[in-house]
Amino acid sequence: MSTIQRARLDAQLRDAGAVVGADSEPSVDEIRESFAKLMSSMPVPEGVRVDETVLGGRPALRVSPDTTAGPAAPAILLYLHGGSHVVGSPRTALGLTAGLVIRTGLPSISLDYRLAPEHPFPADVQDVVAAYRDLLDQGYAPESVAFAGDSAGGGLTISGALAARDAGLPAPAAIVAFSPGLDATRTGRSMTTKADADPLLDRAALDRLSSLYVVGQDRRDPLLSPAVTADLTGLPPLLVQVSTNEMLLDDARRLAQRAADAEVDVILDITAQVPHVFQSFTHVLDEAGEALDRAALFLRQHVRT
Amino acid sequence: MSTIQRARLDAQLRDAGAVVGADSEPSVDEIRESFAKLMSSMPVPEGVRVDETVLGGRPALRVSPDTTAGPAAPAILLYLHGGSHVVGSPRTALGLTAGLVIRTGLPSISLDYRLAPEHPFPADVQDVVAAYRDLLDQGYAPESVAFAGDSAGGGLTISGALAARDAGLPAPAAIVAFSPGLDATRTGRSMTTKADADPLLDRAALDRLSSLYVVGQDRRDPLLSPAVTADLTGLPPLLVQVSTNEMLLDDARRLAQRAADAEVDVILDITAQVPHVFQSFTHVLDEAGEALDRAALFLRQHVRT
Repeated sequence: MSTIQRARLDAQLRDAGAVVGADSEPSVDEIRESFAKLMSSMPVPEGVRVDETVLGGRPALRVSPDTTAGPAAPAILLYLHGGSHVVGSPRTALGLTAGLVIRTGLPSISLDYRLAPEHPFPADVQDVVAAYRDLLDQGYAPESVAFAGDSAGGGLTISGALAARDAGLPAPAAIVAFSPGLDATRTGRSMTTKADADPLLDRAALDRLSSLYVVGQDRRDPLLSPAVTADLTGLPPLLVQVSTNEMLLDDARRLAQRAADAEVDVILDITAQVPHVFQSFTHVLDEAGEALDRAALFLRQHVRT
Repeated sequence: MSTIQRARLDAQLRDAGAVVGADSEPSVDEIRESFAKLMSSMPVPEGVRVDETVLGGRPALRVSPDTTAGPAAPAILLYLHGGSHVVGSPRTALGLTAGLVIRTGLPSISLDYRLAPEHPFPADVQDVVAAYRDLLDQGYAPESVAFAGDSAGGGLTISGALAARDAGLPAPAAIVAFSPGLDATRTGRSMTTKADADPLLDRAALDRLSSLYVVGQDRRDPLLSPAVTADLTGLPPLLVQVSTNEMLLDDARRLAQRAADAEVDVILDITAQVPHVFQSFTHVLDEAGEALDRAALFLRQHVRT
């Protein structure tokens, strides 16, 4: 247990100030820029090849193992980046995506889904369904496609799978969600009990970005708040990783409870005292790579290759 | 997801009748014999060597990787078998112990702790502490010792670690608990909501065996009901595996909640519609071996070798 690493990272993040500051009210463009800058400081492992592509009508990055060992397996990870549904891109999550690609040996397509405020809910959910449908149309078997994502993208792995189910598509093989946001009603106890412990997120900033995304929709819609109102029946095995220092801790907990209630295989994987989406910090935190290793084993166990 | 395997195993167990039947009232010796017979039908993987030994003054089985690749690493898994604190032995859990040994490459010592009714609570907890102390006295570093166990033995991994902590011993490296029993008060909702779904356990039989073990002690003692009353502060990373078809489901859930509340790393790993300690059924259930693989990765991540 790297107690020193955990404490040092927490202090660094607090010194740097929350990514999404509440004291000032930066513009969406300013938030996007500062988020991209922060995330560009995260390491991207060697050994992947990155190509631009299109999936379901949206731009995307294809991240593949950089090997010459024959053709890639007919299996794929559909990756969904974080950024509160307003900021971020496949580039900002490249380290996480590549981390899974390297560890699983599976290629990934990271989707540049539409963002609010230009495209509020449910535009991004529709993009995920369209991307998944495109993969199936290309000939991927559903048992060979996994969804993975972080933060808002972690939430989209669930909402996208629910929307795909409701559209009559078969379930993918598995879902991995890092620190997912799963509750637009913000009723988790950890929203208040972990407000001080969370070195990255801030309630006022979350609410501001959320209002750009939800715009007049019912916050109890299962695709906005799956941890609160969704029937998860029929979802594939889920792995949810989260930290005790997160305002989103109870989003993960309630999702896991609902999943088990719906007879869905679910792993709730909690690491103490690390930040939101700590898997990004492989360069300074042993727990980051270890969590990715567990996610990779879970994906290899469920994705048919 | 092996839906067919899960359903077939459930039906087989129901046909065979619960191990610990409630309709009849077999003697303790009869229960011990039928449990040993049932467990002897579970596969033990090739590639291990089994030797009798003594640890902390109790008989034990040493289960080692059967390799000639130099001396074993100075690391060890302390295994604690199941059997409601009344039945079972290192032999009845040999398949589980060997399954972890094969997958981790680490040797294990499986402790023949004292059983009720001859030796009620806290004799077995004392045996676990004595065994751990013996390992430390032999020169094992605490970071190189993990506790693992199933059912009542899964409960003992937690109670033993708590008692060791309270005795001033350093924490072991990690704890793995398969379908642990963690609540002698039996107040988990799943004790009733899963009574029909559980193909193995039976409330009346559990109560009867429990009464032999508890004998007049306070059932809210943290070492009898750690999921209900224990402060888990200082425990090492925990992996708890359980099924949605278990009366003990809420024991695992509440322990995971308390662990996270105490800033302990914890993984709650739930598999749907498989029986109590499904990891034994590697010969008929893909999920059994997969769960052991996840446990092995968790152990390798935390045990210093």
